Amino acid sequence: MEFPSKLIEDAVNEVSRLPGIGKKTALRLVLHLLKRDEEQTEALARTLTAARTRVKYCQKCHNLSDHDLCSICTSNKRDHSLICVVEDTRDVLAIENTAQFKGLYHVLGGIISPVEGIGPSDLKIDSLIERLRGEEGEVVREIILAISPTMEGDTTAFYLQKKLKPFNLKVSTIARGVPIGGDLEYADEVTLGRSILSRIAYD
Amino acid sequence: MEFPSKLIEDAVNEVSRLPGIGKKTALRLVLHLLKRDEEQTEALARTLTAARTRVKYCQKCHNLSDHDLCSICTSNKRDHSLICVVEDTRDVLAIENTAQFKGLYHVLGGIISPVEGIGPSDLKIDSLIERLRGEEGEVVREIILAISPTMEGDTTAFYLQKKLKPFNLKVSTIARGVPIGGDLEYADEVTLGRSILSRIAYD
Repeated sequence: MEFPSKLIEDAVNEVSRLPGIGKKTALRLVLHLLKRDEEQTEALARTLTAARTRVKYCQKCHNLSDHDLCSICTSNKRDHSLICVVEDTRDVLAIENTAQFKGLYHVLGGIISPVEGIGPSDLKIDSLIERLRGEEGEVVREIILAISPTMEGDTTAFYLQKKLKPFNLKVSTIARGVPIGGDLEYADEVTLGRSILSRIAYD
Repeated sequence: MEFPSKLIEDAVNEVSRLPGIGKKTALRLVLHLLKRDEEQTEALARTLTAARTRVKYCQKCHNLSDHDLCSICTSNKRDHSLICVVEDTRDVLAIENTAQFKGLYHVLGGIISPVEGIGPSDLKIDSLIERLRGEEGEVVREIILAISPTMEGDTTAFYLQKKLKPFNLKVSTIARGVPIGGDLEYADEVTLGRSILSRIAYD
C-alpha cells in the first residue's frame, strides 16, 4: 500500500504493530481519528503514555496498581489467608468480575514455557514463597492455583505444587469441567473426561 | 470491569472509543504495550498525534497529503484530463493498488446520506465543479464515478451526474458485475442481473 502521506504511513505502521491489528484495520483506525476532534487523539496518546510510564506493580501481589500496594492487598475486607495464583492481570479482572473470590491474588507475570524461553525464575514464584513465610505477619491458609488448563499452565501448576509442599497449607486448583450452559455433545473429550473423573456428589 | 489502576482504566477507555474495539480488546492492547519497550508506546502516541495535527488535505483533490498539493496532483506522469471521483482516501488507496488508473482523483469526503444528515453541501462537490471550469489551465475530458454501489452511493452518483451534465465531458461509472474468481451461483441476484444487462461483447 502506498500512502498519500508519510504522517499517515508512520501512524499506520505503529498501530499495526499491536497484536491482531493488520495494515487495513490500522488505516481504518487512523482515518477514524482524523475525522474526530483533535482532543480525542490527544487523550488517546496521553493516556497510553501515562499508563506505560506511570503504572506500577503491587509490591506484594505484582498486580498492576497506581500505588506501591494495590487496592486488593490493602483492603481489610478481603481474606488475607487465601491467595489465588494467576498468570496475569487479565485473570485477576476475570475472577474479580465473578464476585466469588474474597481473598488476595498473586500474579506470576506469565507461565513456564520452554518454547518461549520462560523458566520458573522469570516468574514471581520466589516472592510467593516469601509471602508464605509470613514475615509480614500474615498467615496463609490456602493457595488456589487458577492457571489456564493448557500444557504450559499444567506444567506451571505442577512446579508450584512441588514448591508449596513444604508449607503446611491447602493447595487447590480451580475446577475443570463442562462450562455452564454448554452442550455436552460439544464439549471436547478431555474436558468431558475430566468432568466425569471429578464428578461432584449430590449432598 | 473494575480496573486495578486508574491509569489502565483511562487508557482502556480511550482505546475502546476506536471503532470495532471493545473493552476486552482494548485491555489486551494496553497490557500488550505494558510488556513492550516504552519506546513503542511513545512512537505510537507520537505518530498518532502527528498524523492528527499535521496531516493536510490536498487543496485540489482533498486527498490526505503532507503538502498543500498531493503527490498525485503534482505528478506529471498522471493524466490530468481524467478525474476519478471517490468517497474517501481509502478508495484512493484501493484504486492505486490496482495500478490500472493513471488520472487524478477527487475525494468527496463522504456520500449523501439523509439518515446521517449528510447533504451535497457537506461534500467537496463545489470544488469538483470549480476544477471543471478549467481556471487553472486544466482541461478535464472524463469523470469516472467510483462510488460504492449502495443506496447512498447511487444517490450521490445520480446527483453528481446531474451536476456534471452542463459540462461537455464524458461521465462514466466503474463496471458492476460478478467479481473475478467469484462463483456465479454465489453472486447475489442484483449483481448477476446487472452483469447480464451490462454484458460485454467479444470483439
